Amino acid sequence: MTVTSNFEVFTSLSLLIGAVFMDTSYSLAELAHLVEGELVGDAELRVRGFGPLDEAGPEDLSFIVKADMSGAMAESEAGAFLVPRSVEQSGKPIIRVADPYLASALVLNKMLARPFVPTGIHPSAVVGEGCRIGEQVSIGAQVVLGDRVSVGERVSIGPGTVIGNDVTIGDECIFKAHVTIEHGTEIGARVSISPGTVIGADGFGYATDASGIHVKRPQLGIVRIGDDVEIGANCCIDRATFGVTWIQAGTKIDNLVQVAHNCVVGEHSLLVAQVGLSGSTSLGHHAVFAGQSSTTGHQVIGDRVMVAGQSAVHGDQPDGARLGGSPAFEAKQYFKAVSVFSRLPELAKQVRFLSKELDRIKERFDKT
Amino acid sequence: MTVTSNFEVFTSLSLLIGAVFMDTSYSLAELAHLVEGELVGDAELRVRGFGPLDEAGPEDLSFIVKADMSGAMAESEAGAFLVPRSVEQSGKPIIRVADPYLASALVLNKMLARPFVPTGIHPSAVVGEGCRIGEQVSIGAQVVLGDRVSVGERVSIGPGTVIGNDVTIGDECIFKAHVTIEHGTEIGARVSISPGTVIGADGFGYATDASGIHVKRPQLGIVRIGDDVEIGANCCIDRATFGVTWIQAGTKIDNLVQVAHNCVVGEHSLLVAQVGLSGSTSLGHHAVFAGQSSTTGHQVIGDRVMVAGQSAVHGDQPDGARLGGSPAFEAKQYFKAVSVFSRLPELAKQVRFLSKELDRIKERFDKT
Amino acid sequence: MTVTSNFEVFTSLSLLIGAVFMDTSYSLAELAHLVEGELVGDAELRVRGFGPLDEAGPEDLSFIVKADMSGAMAESEAGAFLVPRSVEQSGKPIIRVADPYLASALVLNKMLARPFVPTGIHPSAVVGEGCRIGEQVSIGAQVVLGDRVSVGERVSIGPGTVIGNDVTIGDECIFKAHVTIEHGTEIGARVSISPGTVIGADGFGYATDASGIHVKRPQLGIVRIGDDVEIGANCCIDRATFGVTWIQAGTKIDNLVQVAHNCVVGEHSLLVAQVGLSGSTSLGHHAVFAGQSSTTGHQVIGDRVMVAGQSAVHGDQPDGARLGGSPAFEAKQYFKAVSVFSRLPELAKQVRFLSKELDRIKERFDKT
Repeated sequence: MTVTSNFEVFTSLSLLIGAVFMDTSYSLAELAHLVEGELVGDAELRVRGFGPLDEAGPEDLSFIVKADMSGAMAESEAGAFLVPRSVEQSGKPIIRVADPYLASALVLNKMLARPFVPTGIHPSAVVGEGCRIGEQVSIGAQVVLGDRVSVGERVSIGPGTVIGNDVTIGDECIFKAHVTIEHGTEIGARVSISPGTVIGADGFGYATDASGIHVKRPQLGIVRIGDDVEIGANCCIDRATFGVTWIQAGTKIDNLVQVAHNCVVGEHSLLVAQVGLSGSTSLGHHAVFAGQSSTTGHQVIGDRVMVAGQSAVHGDQPDGARLGGSPAFEAKQYFKAVSVFSRLPELAKQVRFLSKELDRIKERFDKT
Repeated sequence: MTVTSNFEVFTSLSLLIGAVFMDTSYSLAELAHLVEGELVGDAELRVRGFGPLDEAGPEDLSFIVKADMSGAMAESEAGAFLVPRSVEQSGKPIIRVADPYLASALVLNKMLARPFVPTGIHPSAVVGEGCRIGEQVSIGAQVVLGDRVSVGERVSIGPGTVIGNDVTIGDECIFKAHVTIEHGTEIGARVSISPGTVIGADGFGYATDASGIHVKRPQLGIVRIGDDVEIGANCCIDRATFGVTWIQAGTKIDNLVQVAHNCVVGEHSLLVAQVGLSGSTSLGHHAVFAGQSSTTGHQVIGDRVMVAGQSAVHGDQPDGARLGGSPAFEAKQYFKAVSVFSRLPELAKQVRFLSKELDRIKERFDKT
Repeated sequence: MTVTSNFEVFTSLSLLIGAVFMDTSYSLAELAHLVEGELVGDAELRVRGFGPLDEAGPEDLSFIVKADMSGAMAESEAGAFLVPRSVEQSGKPIIRVADPYLASALVLNKMLARPFVPTGIHPSAVVGEGCRIGEQVSIGAQVVLGDRVSVGERVSIGPGTVIGNDVTIGDECIFKAHVTIEHGTEIGARVSISPGTVIGADGFGYATDASGIHVKRPQLGIVRIGDDVEIGANCCIDRATFGVTWIQAGTKIDNLVQVAHNCVVGEHSLLVAQVGLSGSTSLGHHAVFAGQSSTTGHQVIGDRVMVAGQSAVHGDQPDGARLGGSPAFEAKQYFKAVSVFSRLPELAKQVRFLSKELDRIKERFDKT
């Protein structure tokens, strides 16, 4: 196999990392408090940055996710570690937490927090009539805002992004480059959208006449995006035919995801890359759809439903369902079925064998 | 489950809806004539707008798709209804039609029709040399046209869209924001393209040499798009290696669809979201590919072929084929097979049981 | 079926093709040398262009891929042909080669090679501070370069493309329109990127807290793209959480492909349209993933692994594995299994029949 030289990678990254963590230092005591962890070691020790085991230096905090990584921890130059509770002590200070992944996210978000620095509206941007724009914003080069767009405070809009008429954008949103938000879209606060994503394109709705021509059904609804939603790159969230396509608060969407017209995605859901929700799919809160899975549409799916990758959910589903397959059914049964599937040729052979054996026995029987 | 408050949604939409239908009113007689329906009630009653049952007011027409929605119809404030023929009468005027979905589309398209209002070429747009541009066009901010681009009458090109050299665009096309049309593409009349879609990128063609290096096969063909084609957001229609990749007239394509080099998609076909057609797939007219389905390429697929979601069509297929599965086979058989699939663990258990029983019988036989 | 009139297509293309091949002529001797082929016929005959059988004229070279196309070859107006070695002679000059596809690519690339013509930086482009830009470049209209961007020689950047801060771009790269390259990305030489592709968006990484809120894990790594990589349209290559997401030299990626954070795609791999690699997937060299296939992430996949369309690879895989299915297993077994799958209803019926037969035999047995 091709060997990936981490040494080379991290050398080239060192300047970048150095630039990221530069402002201040943090005592282990305050970080332990932040992550609701138990500190074992010097509470007054201060760290300035955070990195993985092989990248962190003596002034950085690092982390392990599982207790069996303690050996690798011993070889790291990091000054201290976030560890799972099952690790009791180490040669260096440790902060014992329930979930080191979560704790590392909390520490990093604290270390990386910066005051918003507004750059204003770039002179190459085009702003329509009747817009209300916050006093502190960063609107990038080649951006186009339509008419009557409302932009909250501390909003950042990346280069080339296009916002249609009558769009409302809450405070502290971050839209990257080349985002398209079509007319009438309502976006909450702290919404993040990655490049290339299209919000509010027409839903795919046609009625076919007697001669086989597909007559467009006008798409008159809007898209609404709740607070704290994050949407990846090159996604499509279509506007409703009537009413609203709604991504509710706290939901996170990966790249290349399709959400069709009139879908409702409940709060705090996760849609992994290349998921496709067909029209009028309603998801409860905390749905998890793994990559390339889909729904067939016009269905109500309960809370906390989890769907395996490449599955297709047909019909309504109760709260807490775990599903796999295309069409999807109960996940445990699904994983047993795929296991049998891989042995289907043997199974078919065995059935042929049994059939012959049976014939032979019948023959013997008839002779006796 | 999280409850979706339609009240809240429709309140915020009311201004938008109000603005959509404002121009004129229509007698039920003329609307019944338009949709080839039978009017039961006051032919002179006039309506101004159209909406779903819970949104329409006394001056609006509404609709039901199935007769069993008559109860909900009674609670609606709408002034009149489009209904299926099986509904014979109602407390309010009704127009009885074969397909209320189709009829509602026809009514809405009539109500929403507006004269084209050309805004000209935005001063921030960049136009190449030798372009021929219709007298009445709307070319948005930050648009880039290459050289020798031909743009028909009443064409609307959204902000940030990029058109390459030698592209021809027919009358009354609507391209939204951030569309990319590469050089040489031929586009008919009334073609609609949603944001982020890329027409005419190089096909994926390489020949691998003896040392394992993939040598690019230059892609010298073009893309041709027929009249009345609609293409969703973030799609990719690749140019042909030689010749043409052709989307024929009347075909509708959803979002995130891949059409590879040298495909021909027949007239009035429907490609639902995330479909992928491999190179040199030829589809007849009225093909329907459900979401996330695909073809393996270099194949001829007949007219009116329907493919289930997430299926993969291998090889040629006759007219009228109904297909499901990956690889796909006859759809009825497919739906029976997936039903057995979900019971595979039981089937395998049963075969094990039969095998043991058979052994036992043989033993008994041998003893007798 | 709708008939595709090639005559019409190629008529409209003739000007385009004519414009493509205009500069010079090539003797069959030099072309045979280029493709390491054996020339049968007039070594001094000169050709000016290249096309498929039904498009090439007397001054063009054409090609057939299989010996059984010799009949069609006889009807072509082309002046000479690239043919597989199994063709021994023809009425016109032929060049016998091991792989006519490869040979045609080599010939076309030679015929189409042009000196780079720099157009400079378009006045509508916006260039940040501290950029180092080659002396010979073409930077298109509405392009946005961030700060400290490094651009090599003979680089072409298409209209509307956005490049973030601290990006480095090697010599002779070609980025088409609407490409987005986010901050810190490192791009080698001769890299080609089609429209709409997003490099370096944040990876999809969250840790869920006790209350069910998804806390963002900051994505601090970068993307590195090796020399001679080609990436299609509307793809997403996410930045690493820490470290690097790496597309190694010579790899070719089709459209709408998702490569998640911390993936490593080995040299000279092929990822076909709509493939999705989950986070921390490591591929060896010469991987081939067919359309819509995927990985589940956190896995090491060996060299020269091939994956069938719509498959999902779970777990580590050895060098040379051939895989199919979701989850994927050994490909030969997979193709046998799908064959049985299509006959599952009959298999289930047979098992029911055997079960009844067995019961009947047992009954007879008990009676005897």
